[in-house]
Amino acid sequence: MTVFLVGAGPGDPGLITAKGLELVRSCDALVYDVLVAPELVDEAPEDALRISRGGIGQHELNELLVALGRQGLEVVRLKGGDPFVFGRGGEEALALSDAGVPFDVVPGVSALSAVPASAGIPVTHRGVSAQVTLVSGHSANGDELDYGHLASTPGTLVVFMGLTQLPKLAVRLIGAGKDPATPAAVVSRGTHSDGETVSGRLHEIAELAAGLQSPALLVVGDVVALRRRVERVSPMRGAALSRDLA
Amino acid sequence: MTVFLVGAGPGDPGLITAKGLELVRSCDALVYDVLVAPELVDEAPEDALRISRGGIGQHELNELLVALGRQGLEVVRLKGGDPFVFGRGGEEALALSDAGVPFDVVPGVSALSAVPASAGIPVTHRGVSAQVTLVSGHSANGDELDYGHLASTPGTLVVFMGLTQLPKLAVRLIGAGKDPATPAAVVSRGTHSDGETVSGRLHEIAELAAGLQSPALLVVGDVVALRRRVERVSPMRGAALSRDLA
Repeated sequence: MTVFLVGAGPGDPGLITAKGLELVRSCDALVYDVLVAPELVDEAPEDALRISRGGIGQHELNELLVALGRQGLEVVRLKGGDPFVFGRGGEEALALSDAGVPFDVVPGVSALSAVPASAGIPVTHRGVSAQVTLVSGHSANGDELDYGHLASTPGTLVVFMGLTQLPKLAVRLIGAGKDPATPAAVVSRGTHSDGETVSGRLHEIAELAAGLQSPALLVVGDVVALRRRVERVSPMRGAALSRDLA
Repeated sequence: MTVFLVGAGPGDPGLITAKGLELVRSCDALVYDVLVAPELVDEAPEDALRISRGGIGQHELNELLVALGRQGLEVVRLKGGDPFVFGRGGEEALALSDAGVPFDVVPGVSALSAVPASAGIPVTHRGVSAQVTLVSGHSANGDELDYGHLASTPGTLVVFMGLTQLPKLAVRLIGAGKDPATPAAVVSRGTHSDGETVSGRLHEIAELAAGLQSPALLVVGDVVALRRRVERVSPMRGAALSRDLA
């Protein structure tokens, strides 16, 4: 009986780790986030319990994981991205630890760099950016951002957010002193075959991103300007992405 | 003919992505970082070219990748961690793009969160840290850190570094105003079976870390204090880590 907190990666099902996939394929129960690729859910054994996390609050979810673990099941809690990068995996780990249920963490590819990479943007680049700052723009996180400090932070700023937060975020960063001409990009559904990216300047990015789908990631910094040089649509993108799991 | 820049993950060979492993298993040529797990190098086809990156400068490496790509080979450039998180993947991508050689990027699990996770430290945690700042302490990166700004940055600070940089880093952060009592940890060879972690306060962390092996990661912030509550040694750790690749 172990509960594995497994990162599913940023969207593309091929980006789960080898170890994570192995655990999904042998689990007794799979508790999965709504945004996890259905191809990964289908990898669980036919007789495994499959429980979507949709509509379940965090406290209730913690109790569910403890209960499943206590039943002696091998449980995989499959979470989008990485469990510990705005994934609230720490809360699930603490609940399991407090209940004395054995657990382990199998990290995943975070959207942090994979999503910008899918749009041809390296979050660090020699001579351009040697620092990455990661924040969440979801107001549900309950933590207010320090825009004054963020506006003066060197390097690349990556914001996990819903698109509805974007206009407010851009205005507050500029209001706190960030140069309105800073290169910025919004990557929607990054690493998915229907991913879309817009890029321009911070002052216009909310307008450019109108109509894109959530989830989305905002990238602010000079690395965005590398995009036109690095981007290349290759045969790997699109339909071929899930071939590895066939 | 495509050159794939593939992230090998933070150390444990089971943390390569399913897609990355598939590409390694079918490549014509594998160019790999010294720190990449030998188990992954062994996954390449028997007749594949295997080229260690050890001792090859970045410029020479870029030329090598272009040359291999132009020979019509399927090339996997296997890099530790994630290619775009202090992995200099952007430089390799630009060189390939400029030479007209098709390439793609397959992101990897970055040490950023996986290595702290292996020590029971979530880099974000509700009510404790809603921001992660990532810098490199390797002087070879050529970019000087802004210690004054870093010292006042909220949330979690993660520093990729060699252990020789640690005393200087800690002293400069404290000198720039960071509270010497801030919880700090150094994780050496995180996710490897011989990984070791020390934790304490920022002012004493260099002393505590004496004798640990590189590569190492420094984590500074209140999330470190969660470690004793979250840590749990499970049967997954250690020898079992590479079982998925057997």
